[in-house]
Amino acid sequence: MDPEAFLDIANQVTKLKMFPYFDIAYCVLCALSVREDLGNGSQTFSRKHPLACWLSYMLVVFAGGMVCNALLAEPILAPLKNTPQVLVACLVWYVIFYTPVDIGYKLAKFLPIKIVCSAMKEVYRCKKVYDGVSHAAKLYPNAFLIMIIIGTIKGNGAGFVRLFERLIRGVWTPTAMEFMQPSFYTKASLVASIIFVLDKKTDLISAPHALVYFGIVIFFVYFKLSSILLGIHDPFVPFENLLCALFFGGIWDSMAKIMGRGQIKEEAKDAKKTN
Amino acid sequence: MDPEAFLDIANQVTKLKMFPYFDIAYCVLCALSVREDLGNGSQTFSRKHPLACWLSYMLVVFAGGMVCNALLAEPILAPLKNTPQVLVACLVWYVIFYTPVDIGYKLAKFLPIKIVCSAMKEVYRCKKVYDGVSHAAKLYPNAFLIMIIIGTIKGNGAGFVRLFERLIRGVWTPTAMEFMQPSFYTKASLVASIIFVLDKKTDLISAPHALVYFGIVIFFVYFKLSSILLGIHDPFVPFENLLCALFFGGIWDSMAKIMGRGQIKEEAKDAKKTN
Amino acid sequence: MDPEAFLDIANQVTKLKMFPYFDIAYCVLCALSVREDLGNGSQTFSRKHPLACWLSYMLVVFAGGMVCNALLAEPILAPLKNTPQVLVACLVWYVIFYTPVDIGYKLAKFLPIKIVCSAMKEVYRCKKVYDGVSHAAKLYPNAFLIMIIIGTIKGNGAGFVRLFERLIRGVWTPTAMEFMQPSFYTKASLVASIIFVLDKKTDLISAPHALVYFGIVIFFVYFKLSSILLGIHDPFVPFENLLCALFFGGIWDSMAKIMGRGQIKEEAKDAKKTN
Repeated sequence: MDPEAFLDIANQVTKLKMFPYFDIAYCVLCALSVREDLGNGSQTFSRKHPLACWLSYMLVVFAGGMVCNALLAEPILAPLKNTPQVLVACLVWYVIFYTPVDIGYKLAKFLPIKIVCSAMKEVYRCKKVYDGVSHAAKLYPNAFLIMIIIGTIKGNGAGFVRLFERLIRGVWTPTAMEFMQPSFYTKASLVASIIFVLDKKTDLISAPHALVYFGIVIFFVYFKLSSILLGIHDPFVPFENLLCALFFGGIWDSMAKIMGRGQIKEEAKDAKKTN
Repeated sequence: MDPEAFLDIANQVTKLKMFPYFDIAYCVLCALSVREDLGNGSQTFSRKHPLACWLSYMLVVFAGGMVCNALLAEPILAPLKNTPQVLVACLVWYVIFYTPVDIGYKLAKFLPIKIVCSAMKEVYRCKKVYDGVSHAAKLYPNAFLIMIIIGTIKGNGAGFVRLFERLIRGVWTPTAMEFMQPSFYTKASLVASIIFVLDKKTDLISAPHALVYFGIVIFFVYFKLSSILLGIHDPFVPFENLLCALFFGGIWDSMAKIMGRGQIKEEAKDAKKTN
Repeated sequence: MDPEAFLDIANQVTKLKMFPYFDIAYCVLCALSVREDLGNGSQTFSRKHPLACWLSYMLVVFAGGMVCNALLAEPILAPLKNTPQVLVACLVWYVIFYTPVDIGYKLAKFLPIKIVCSAMKEVYRCKKVYDGVSHAAKLYPNAFLIMIIIGTIKGNGAGFVRLFERLIRGVWTPTAMEFMQPSFYTKASLVASIIFVLDKKTDLISAPHALVYFGIVIFFVYFKLSSILLGIHDPFVPFENLLCALFFGGIWDSMAKIMGRGQIKEEAKDAKKTN
């Protein structure tokens, strides 16, 4: 492939307009995730508590923006000021939950449609991560940690509001904390944020920005599709295990165990005694 | 009644000064609601945990302002900067919880006093809803959804902080979410917000503003009194049922049921199978 | 001791630079508290969930600033913009949780080191309370309540985020609310805030500011050391009991009990009946 042409495509991807098609795809997947989170009782719940259903769905749709605004002292409700976007979100909600004979839901679950929506959502995710990093960089030009946090949350906002989204529906699952078992999307957003920060703030990445952006888009889409089609869920696991072994005690703990005086053993003993 | 004179009264109602009498009535009812929420143990609790009791009461009193400020990126503590209002609130709290032989509480529970306070609280509520809508309209002139949300929360702030108010007192009731079963006050505030938005932003309502305002005040007071005296709790129920039947699946579900191929049935089957 | 020299020392204490030594001492104690909160499973938890462990630790370290920023509509993440401070905090976390054969943790638990760190933390706490009060006074020159709240939260931020810190680790303990049983540090911060407000805003305290500040530092350090070394945990208890007896119903309740017509008795009867 001609490198010129490739760069051209990359440039066009960075300038893609999101509204309304990408927004619709994103909202469809949000509505599906809320509906699946409700499980078997989704039909009954949506009939009995339309307000709670709508609110928890809206929270999921605007999660990234709302959480980031809360953390940066910007109005939490500001994402709702874009009336066309709000209308599109409401329409999608209505179609997924309330169309006769559930045609909306069934269509959205139809594999080819779901795949297209998922791919579009990943393109959107990349844009959100980038926007988040840029926004934080404008506010705090030297605070790398803040840029990374904002980028990650923008990328996978829904994951971080899960607890509150469920709380709106009267369900409280404190153990389902995103930080305990970060999903693939959180990790991918984190990696993408770090790459964008490096690209923006250091000279470590010499490739043009459009290429970096395009690379991350491809990475997001590729793993999403392989997760749907091939069932590969988390390509980060081996890297994580390596990291944990090297830096977070893995090797030292093993050595201590082998040498028979590791504190894990002692702790286990202590635990036995106290039990 | 002379229409001129009526409009005059309406005009005066829109300009009523709230401090201190309406504030006192409002605080009395807030203190009663906290005390009733504590149930039988209220006496013991207020003696053992005065700080938690005071904090949860203050949260209820300033709920609307605090939640709205949080949502609009204004200082959450700002409502406390009005020292006279804070002092009045503290005094009422003290009188309701700690007067000898509980005279304060008994007086406040005395029906005629309670009725007067309730009516004053409803007048206050109307003013709050209107202030909320106006404030949001100043910040986001085109965001109808934000105006409605802020108006509703200002109108029934206490309902939306119930979970956190109880959490301060060490009680956690995730299923008592306001959104699941919105109270009459939430619905009334919602309707009032919508009317104020229509009055402010569109030409659909041709009546003068003072009349609209006065009408809502009368509506609030009337239903509050009928709820205390006649036990009518929610005049919205029939409209809701109609709305749910028309738009939220009611009719279609029934038709699907009758035709013997509704997914509710299937779902029930599925549920049986998985069980 | 020469009063001049004493005032000189006091002046120097008010101008002490906190970074990096006081920060390190503070972070060490935060890390210890997180690790002790994890109990026996801390080793396993820190290996399995490094992200949740790090996040809950960072929340504890920056708790005061973050909560106060949230309450004053300043960016919650702003405390993280100081990159050197963030790096020091991360380093301390790593040393306490992940050094081979747990040497970091053992060192930090070594009594003399712990005592020095604790004393330094108390000096830091005093500075934080003072900064909090000053900051609030700049924003709201007449809002005494806001100054006191901000001072108290800055002084014992970790206490107020305990619930959320545990929630990040997937543990939910709604009854462990700080307000129900305020710890000594909360009460001490509250008293210090009130003294600073009186010093700043009224003429009741005629001593020079440096002396007031130094006095509070000595008070904090003295009670911290006596708590570690002598096991005295809460010197406020007698005052509290007196206050409760005088103002929060104690005496009246007793009188009512003696006279055989107190409502506590009745309530007990009612409770029996309903049971």
